[in-house]
Amino acid sequence: MSGNRIIFGFHAITSRLKQSPASIKEIFVDAARHDQRVRNLTQLAENQKLRITYCTTTKLTNLAGNDHHQGVVAVIDATQRITDVDDLLDTLTEPARLLILDGIQDPHNLGACLRIADAFSIHAVIAPKDRAVGLNSTVHKVSSGAADTVPFIAVTNLSRTLKDLKQRGIWIIGTAGDAEHDLDHFKITEPVAWVFGSEGKGLRRLTRENCDFMVRIPMSGQVGSLNISVSVGICLFETHRQRIAT
Amino acid sequence: MSGNRIIFGFHAITSRLKQSPASIKEIFVDAARHDQRVRNLTQLAENQKLRITYCTTTKLTNLAGNDHHQGVVAVIDATQRITDVDDLLDTLTEPARLLILDGIQDPHNLGACLRIADAFSIHAVIAPKDRAVGLNSTVHKVSSGAADTVPFIAVTNLSRTLKDLKQRGIWIIGTAGDAEHDLDHFKITEPVAWVFGSEGKGLRRLTRENCDFMVRIPMSGQVGSLNISVSVGICLFETHRQRIAT
Repeated sequence: MSGNRIIFGFHAITSRLKQSPASIKEIFVDAARHDQRVRNLTQLAENQKLRITYCTTTKLTNLAGNDHHQGVVAVIDATQRITDVDDLLDTLTEPARLLILDGIQDPHNLGACLRIADAFSIHAVIAPKDRAVGLNSTVHKVSSGAADTVPFIAVTNLSRTLKDLKQRGIWIIGTAGDAEHDLDHFKITEPVAWVFGSEGKGLRRLTRENCDFMVRIPMSGQVGSLNISVSVGICLFETHRQRIAT
Repeated sequence: MSGNRIIFGFHAITSRLKQSPASIKEIFVDAARHDQRVRNLTQLAENQKLRITYCTTTKLTNLAGNDHHQGVVAVIDATQRITDVDDLLDTLTEPARLLILDGIQDPHNLGACLRIADAFSIHAVIAPKDRAVGLNSTVHKVSSGAADTVPFIAVTNLSRTLKDLKQRGIWIIGTAGDAEHDLDHFKITEPVAWVFGSEGKGLRRLTRENCDFMVRIPMSGQVGSLNISVSVGICLFETHRQRIAT
């Protein structure tokens, strides 16, 4: 199986250019497009000395397998995975947005979280190596491809990783039902790392101690908790909304 | 099996008082509490001529089975289900917030949506009778009890129901990936009914034609869609957030 994958659309290619330009093998751009959005993207690609091929809309549609490509398609090396948090952060050209999953066991939940991370431009999903599900085939399937596009980094010592992130000035926001701050009144400042605990058990003590803030999703009903992927979706949407609003 | 259920906490009991007071058999209130929140609740209950019993914290904890009751516990008749949209709307004492699921097939998705509806004070979940999953045992289990607390109304003709809701001045907001409005720039006005399509297929044509607005969740990644329950969570959280902010 080839390690090459096709990605398309401005957001996907721009975020790949910002996150791991070395994994991009070639970029195809619609020769008929000369707008600012295309110029911004080709400028970024040229800065990284990447090969750009100008071609017809039809060729792009063939490459992408559909017509949602917005005139830009890239071939990436999906085997060249980011495996180190420092490598990722050193190459970022915008404030970090990270999702940390402290001991998720269910592959469906991890797959769903990767899909949400992809949707809201998260730079990487970080999880402990032990006592947590990794990137297995169920995760790949449930993620609808996001397991290929969002870096997933398994770390040996999550507590030490959190301390390193804080050293870099990244705000660590933990989530819990009994947290002090309500998400609907909480100002989210980037760079940010959101931390979610395992299904049922929540954050481990050491993880919680490393959080700068603890936030809860306001809920008024009887049940008192949401599925982990729904909680992740709400927090990452709100992060996106606040970023756009400022 | 008795049809009686215990519910507890201010939000759960207040929303039950507003939605279907007739289903409440008795309310137990901590005799040591005299604050405004308790007075508001007992006032609502007295208006409905409901029986209120004042008792000790210990008795409330025994009734609720835990100490999260905030000093208020109610016994409700869970068999007395609301089965008619008009019955529900006629008795509401606040602007309606409805969740309409147009042909959800997967019981896990319906259970997750009921749980979210419970969390964000949705007055009812409405779905078509045909070609959609109903309240089976899997739905009950996944909903973590929300299937007992959130009215689920199955209707014969969803299109006609939507027209009736519009007649009552309820805004119908449909969701789709190609919608005109982005959720992060969309002003949500209550009373409101959010409409989500089935997994994969989205809204049916007739359903879509009955929507006042079509809204999309802004997504920047490669995958291009979220699980239905994640989408519902985001839209209902944002509805809640805007209501609180105004």
